[in-house]
Amino acid sequence: MEKVNIILVGFGRVGRAFFDLIKEKYDYCRKNYDLYLELRGILREKGSILLTSTRKVLSPAYFATEDLDSLADWVSAISLDDLLEEFDKGVVVDCTPTNISTGEPSYSIMKKALEKGWHVVTASKGALVLKSAELRELARSKNLMIKASGATAAALPTLDLGLYALAGAEILAIEGILNGTCNYILTRMAEGLTYKKALEEAQHKGIAEPNPSYDVEGWDTAVKMVLIANQLLGTDIKLSEVTVRGIKGINKEVVEKAQRLGKTLKLFGKCYRENYELPWKVEVGLALLDHNHPLSQVNGSNKGIIFYTDTMGWIAVMGGKSNPRGAAAALLKDIINIYRKNQ
Amino acid sequence: MEKVNIILVGFGRVGRAFFDLIKEKYDYCRKNYDLYLELRGILREKGSILLTSTRKVLSPAYFATEDLDSLADWVSAISLDDLLEEFDKGVVVDCTPTNISTGEPSYSIMKKALEKGWHVVTASKGALVLKSAELRELARSKNLMIKASGATAAALPTLDLGLYALAGAEILAIEGILNGTCNYILTRMAEGLTYKKALEEAQHKGIAEPNPSYDVEGWDTAVKMVLIANQLLGTDIKLSEVTVRGIKGINKEVVEKAQRLGKTLKLFGKCYRENYELPWKVEVGLALLDHNHPLSQVNGSNKGIIFYTDTMGWIAVMGGKSNPRGAAAALLKDIINIYRKNQ
Repeated sequence: MEKVNIILVGFGRVGRAFFDLIKEKYDYCRKNYDLYLELRGILREKGSILLTSTRKVLSPAYFATEDLDSLADWVSAISLDDLLEEFDKGVVVDCTPTNISTGEPSYSIMKKALEKGWHVVTASKGALVLKSAELRELARSKNLMIKASGATAAALPTLDLGLYALAGAEILAIEGILNGTCNYILTRMAEGLTYKKALEEAQHKGIAEPNPSYDVEGWDTAVKMVLIANQLLGTDIKLSEVTVRGIKGINKEVVEKAQRLGKTLKLFGKCYRENYELPWKVEVGLALLDHNHPLSQVNGSNKGIIFYTDTMGWIAVMGGKSNPRGAAAALLKDIINIYRKNQ
Repeated sequence: MEKVNIILVGFGRVGRAFFDLIKEKYDYCRKNYDLYLELRGILREKGSILLTSTRKVLSPAYFATEDLDSLADWVSAISLDDLLEEFDKGVVVDCTPTNISTGEPSYSIMKKALEKGWHVVTASKGALVLKSAELRELARSKNLMIKASGATAAALPTLDLGLYALAGAEILAIEGILNGTCNYILTRMAEGLTYKKALEEAQHKGIAEPNPSYDVEGWDTAVKMVLIANQLLGTDIKLSEVTVRGIKGINKEVVEKAQRLGKTLKLFGKCYRENYELPWKVEVGLALLDHNHPLSQVNGSNKGIIFYTDTMGWIAVMGGKSNPRGAAAALLKDIINIYRKNQ
């Protein structure tokens, strides 16, 4: 039996889903992994909250309200430092918004957590895409882990597939359909819609953001691919080194032409090198897939990734919910994989 | 840096591929996982061989021959007990032939290894399908691991996907295309061949065995599904409890009818329960898949598996070489995942 202290930073859609999930899965994790996941505090911009244990959160008298904001327990006096000092080392769960220009507030949170001896599990991409090497070196020097499943494609397994299922195999190349918005738009355009109509529909369904630039310009795919490459291949690729071409405003005729050729058009993140002597490259752009390509059937807002290896051939994985609950499940998985005893 | 002593039992196609792979990957594992994988001995029916280290095997003076059988070093005086006593505890790699009636020789090998404090990594299915609960209990009591990736679908990740990538999620159901021979035959029949012609072609290509009964009658799929279920769901399902319907002699008209309906016919292993109160069931039989089913595009001798979960939605994985080298890569992966420090 092991107690795992958890501090949750960020309380937006993913943070709340994680909060709900850890209540729901408290007993499951105790029974199946012998882990007592104790949420000790929540921090957000508008204040913070100190908890004694997840048990308390589970009790009906506490947090038995949908309207968390109205709780009187939110105070502004408690800082991350206070919480890191107050409890025995555990995991800081970072659900703050991604900022790929500054990496903040994620960078400061992760650095502070690691310096104080806490593991980091993150759904936020900014700090890792900008300062991966520095943060990973800090973690290594302290024998700590940074896990980022929730940042790379929510519930679609990417990093752990590479780490565990491909252990001992050398990765020769990676291709991924990593952005639900782009894939939804391309799927609907193949069914006859214009770009504008398909985007509007995606926004209406809550798949695409009101401002879809980050997704449709290919940046989300680029960021995810950089995170995956840097962790699995040990590279230190910068976002500025990635060739990024998105699907913004793509003409219907391009999609129709692909169809006439009997092919499917997908927005691909790719990671490859020409040969062993040359450095790894990451590229984002449209790819024309044959119908027998394992990812050609990844449609709608689904995602998928394929690894080409030296000993195992190719291995493709697809699916995994991309909603906040799926991202929360990825965060929970990372915590379990840090602490589990029974492998 | 950790030395891992390895004893290889069984020296058929998979055993030899493992022998080759461990030579090829010795330096890779040292560099990437800080593990020194030291092959200490090989046992087979016709004799055994004692090695001092993998390094010695790597040296040109030793084993620099394709014709391993002719080596004078094979002796009959060394037993598994001798090797287990001779070296510090490590891993016994079981590549003996599968026997689903007796579980031997795998059962005796695994039991002996565990009793002496060695982990077990196996490509052999018999012992686990017959005595899973007993062997796993023995391993647990000694804080040892039994890993069976090589027994469940060679290089297609099944068990580690369930253990690591789905950690914390509850599996609601599993479906798998787990037998390359059956899938090849069904794929070629959908392209117009008769069962007889498709089987002959599969045999000619080395995909199907000269005696294909075990595969085409569905037993291979059943055994794999039982292994997967018993490890991932903690069940103790017996092979005798599985409803098994294979594809032997299947009529061309059945396949044509599926096509007229716009569907694909696959041999599915399924694991599910009607509801939480009822026990898990494993079934093997033909399934009629819609073209949007994630496994509908798993064609030829490829394999695939899909997990339905409570928090992550569905996750499907496909591919992975099913040749001896792929199986050897699965064995190597299991060894690394037992010993790795950097997760």
